[in-house]
Amino acid sequence: MGRQIFFNGGFHEETEKLLSIQDRGLCFADGLFEVIRCVNGRFLLFTKHIARMRQSAAELRMDFPHSDGELLEACRELSRRNGVLDGELYLEITRGEAPRYHTFPEGVRPTFFIVLIPLRKMPENCWSVGVRTVTFPDTRGAYCHLKTINLLPNVLGKQHAKEKGAFEALFTREDARGRYLTEGPSSSIFCIRNGVLFTPELDNILPGTTRHFVIQLAREEGLEVREQRLHLQDFLEADEHFISSTVSEVMPVIQLDETVLGRGAKGPLTTRLQERYAAFKGDHLE
Amino acid sequence: MGRQIFFNGGFHEETEKLLSIQDRGLCFADGLFEVIRCVNGRFLLFTKHIARMRQSAAELRMDFPHSDGELLEACRELSRRNGVLDGELYLEITRGEAPRYHTFPEGVRPTFFIVLIPLRKMPENCWSVGVRTVTFPDTRGAYCHLKTINLLPNVLGKQHAKEKGAFEALFTREDARGRYLTEGPSSSIFCIRNGVLFTPELDNILPGTTRHFVIQLAREEGLEVREQRLHLQDFLEADEHFISSTVSEVMPVIQLDETVLGRGAKGPLTTRLQERYAAFKGDHLE
Repeated sequence: MGRQIFFNGGFHEETEKLLSIQDRGLCFADGLFEVIRCVNGRFLLFTKHIARMRQSAAELRMDFPHSDGELLEACRELSRRNGVLDGELYLEITRGEAPRYHTFPEGVRPTFFIVLIPLRKMPENCWSVGVRTVTFPDTRGAYCHLKTINLLPNVLGKQHAKEKGAFEALFTREDARGRYLTEGPSSSIFCIRNGVLFTPELDNILPGTTRHFVIQLAREEGLEVREQRLHLQDFLEADEHFISSTVSEVMPVIQLDETVLGRGAKGPLTTRLQERYAAFKGDHLE
Repeated sequence: MGRQIFFNGGFHEETEKLLSIQDRGLCFADGLFEVIRCVNGRFLLFTKHIARMRQSAAELRMDFPHSDGELLEACRELSRRNGVLDGELYLEITRGEAPRYHTFPEGVRPTFFIVLIPLRKMPENCWSVGVRTVTFPDTRGAYCHLKTINLLPNVLGKQHAKEKGAFEALFTREDARGRYLTEGPSSSIFCIRNGVLFTPELDNILPGTTRHFVIQLAREEGLEVREQRLHLQDFLEADEHFISSTVSEVMPVIQLDETVLGRGAKGPLTTRLQERYAAFKGDHLE
């Protein structure tokens, strides 16, 4: 019999198929974990680790399904069942299983599991002598050009939009001139001013497929296109505004936070790009 | 019968349990996705989307298990089986199922699945009138203080360390003074100089549990502790160096990239902290 794990209140084999592809851990990295040291069947700083996990879950507005006592009992049972006295305990919580929409699903039970593995064999001279290390750029947040499933910030942005009654959030960063726009959690950002189409340059944003062809269609329409850093102030002062994505296609934007954009209505060049995109779609189905 | 999905070469119900908790998508966000628009049972820019996914997988050194032809056939079959002509196609690849170690597993088949859902109902005036949006700070990379499963950069750092024959990678960022250290993919960073313990301040790093108590034990040992930005140059010139984590505990570091640190051997204060930590451990098991 293989290793036993604790999964949503019961005990299972580690390799048992327990999750569907709808788990938000798998699609959005919408989850948290902890690692706790097991020594002689007891658990180092157990309460402190669980407290951090519980507080972090609260920060992400995720339900926490077990009491400390239940978890400690489950961990002791894992130690007994697996005969592991010296080991590493891994705990993970995700927001649970639901159809894949960024915003928080309602009435969904979190996924919660615990694995206890024997302590990794590491040579004693790791501690007695020391180890070698290497530097590596701290690239957390720097993989936006890849469509990875590291989507937790996108989830939080979309949820914020939903709660504000908005369709999309527009991510902002800041430089010496002030806030600038990068992209939405699931869209690219455009505006038009004096017949020029502006969109953020490919600098740590996803090279959107729809974005790519919107630019091409705009050029065919005779618009000049400038891919450059797009400051919030310039965006607010533009004539027309829209976002693009596979699903949103060319979608006009008429408000950002409290500011009504343009004339508060779709602009004429946006309409022209929508028409061009509709024609383009028909010609590029595979 | 519920919605049918394509999963690792076969067709299954969407809610079927198909994955174990060992999937690297679930633990490390070690995966990629695409969304493709389905129009009249055909797929918009299919080849271009798959090319991006394939190139991104290559960049992450992930095998890509299907040809374009196989995937297009699977997508058409999904359209037929689900009776969806107008929809959104979601494709995801993860590095597959393996015991949870950051570095790339050997001989593991990727997990690859496709879901086709009917087009989301969105009011026509989203396009004809336009939508409201909100700003949201571009926080991708800014959740390092939470122990989320957004671990892809950590996976890449650990893999780099392994390939360089090192035990751990130390993440670096850069400011006007040069590179500085933040933390390791699974550890906190310390050095000691002239009897003072230095460690990066809690600025977008995980507040490590072991880190917290190492600081406390250092103070009990009579060391001054300074939590502040730790530049690489200062780290290299320190007398003693170590990392800490639940599993590594207090682990001396004797080399960083090509530079031998300190005297190339564990220092006396590190030994004292190891002794204190060993005693501490025995007193804090739950």
